[in-house]
Amino acid sequence: MNYDLYYWPMIPGRGEYPRLVLEAAEAHYRDVARLPESEGGGMKAMKAFLSGERGHLAPFAPPFLVDGDIIVSQAAEIAAYVGEKHGLAPLMEADRQFARSIAFTTADLVKEVHDVHHPLGSGLYYEDQKPEAKRYAEGFRNERIPKFLGWYERLLTSNPEEPDFLVGDRLTYADLGLFQTWLGLEYAFPKRMGNIAGDYPKIRALVEQVSRHGPVAAYLASDRRMAFNEDGIFRHYRELDAE
Amino acid sequence: MNYDLYYWPMIPGRGEYPRLVLEAAEAHYRDVARLPESEGGGMKAMKAFLSGERGHLAPFAPPFLVDGDIIVSQAAEIAAYVGEKHGLAPLMEADRQFARSIAFTTADLVKEVHDVHHPLGSGLYYEDQKPEAKRYAEGFRNERIPKFLGWYERLLTSNPEEPDFLVGDRLTYADLGLFQTWLGLEYAFPKRMGNIAGDYPKIRALVEQVSRHGPVAAYLASDRRMAFNEDGIFRHYRELDAE
Repeated sequence: MNYDLYYWPMIPGRGEYPRLVLEAAEAHYRDVARLPESEGGGMKAMKAFLSGERGHLAPFAPPFLVDGDIIVSQAAEIAAYVGEKHGLAPLMEADRQFARSIAFTTADLVKEVHDVHHPLGSGLYYEDQKPEAKRYAEGFRNERIPKFLGWYERLLTSNPEEPDFLVGDRLTYADLGLFQTWLGLEYAFPKRMGNIAGDYPKIRALVEQVSRHGPVAAYLASDRRMAFNEDGIFRHYRELDAE
Repeated sequence: MNYDLYYWPMIPGRGEYPRLVLEAAEAHYRDVARLPESEGGGMKAMKAFLSGERGHLAPFAPPFLVDGDIIVSQAAEIAAYVGEKHGLAPLMEADRQFARSIAFTTADLVKEVHDVHHPLGSGLYYEDQKPEAKRYAEGFRNERIPKFLGWYERLLTSNPEEPDFLVGDRLTYADLGLFQTWLGLEYAFPKRMGNIAGDYPKIRALVEQVSRHGPVAAYLASDRRMAFNEDGIFRHYRELDAE
């Protein structure tokens, strides 16, 4: 199976959620916008899909995945699609369905992470909304982070099948999404996360376990893995962090 | 098939997206939080799920749907789940998958609609973030609304199967989501929508068609249909609207 993944080439961002699942599954995929134009890649190839030149199923925004005539957009939907095809999803129907709910809730958290530095909208630069970002960040650090992380920790604790995973008895795309989100939060809010990380022993154990998963570990050590940076979703601005 | 839908009882909000699909499908469902406690309803029943008392598959937030042992949360995921079970989804695999991408993109738009009145976060009242809301609203009205609506209009125009629908050859939950969103935007931003509605003839035709769909029309005329209000997602604040 050969997939084409499309996402902005310079940031991990939302593209990293499906990318991690593809890597964990050892699936064959091209990261199209990161390829040179001479190989059919680059922004031009991505824009051809978004503009409708490549057919009427034109996604609203990256990331999107092309699998033959199937086009999937939305990071969590792509993660679920790939995960379900490659054994990185629960087997039991109720668990399988709930993994989707988890992944989309993680996508909501990621949107809030974005809004920390862009509370007034993505049409303005961070520099034009710094005081507002500071106010947003306070509520995000103090209320939202513990609310989301507490929910994941409870899922991990109460999973009757295998409390090492969020749902079901095996590693799934839902776990991979939490892994990436935890790392992102640590990157963006090192003081806050340093202060509260001890409250989430099950999440930390999961993050540790994922980082040792063979294909994931190989990916993390490769040059395909991009570092977090201040053009992405998870940004470290010292003025937005606090214990 | 008997479903239990859970959502805040006093607002249409995100709950209206799955509710519309249940109604269009003429599915049997209980709107649990709107039932009296004596019938097992009310907020207490909803909170029992969220707190984990009703099992380990505890959603992060409403809306959620209970279908036997399956629990689905996230408005767009519930809409897709019900739509796919009840013939309100495309039949062809590529279209079926793309309908999901559309519904989740609509969920992103709905989140931005929420952020218009709560740009600094949901932990603060609107009254405590009015100047910021005004700035957010300007970009939302001028850039985001046309960007989203233009995308839907292009999908409707370029659908080779049946240009009356967003994807495939029949009414789907993706169309129902656009219907609800269009009405919400008209409610919240009457000046802006009055100014630009003419740019979207295909969307308007779809909205008209959905409103005449038998089960939907019956639902809209019933007391089950809640009006938009200023506790919900789509809020009409005159200071946030402009041509």
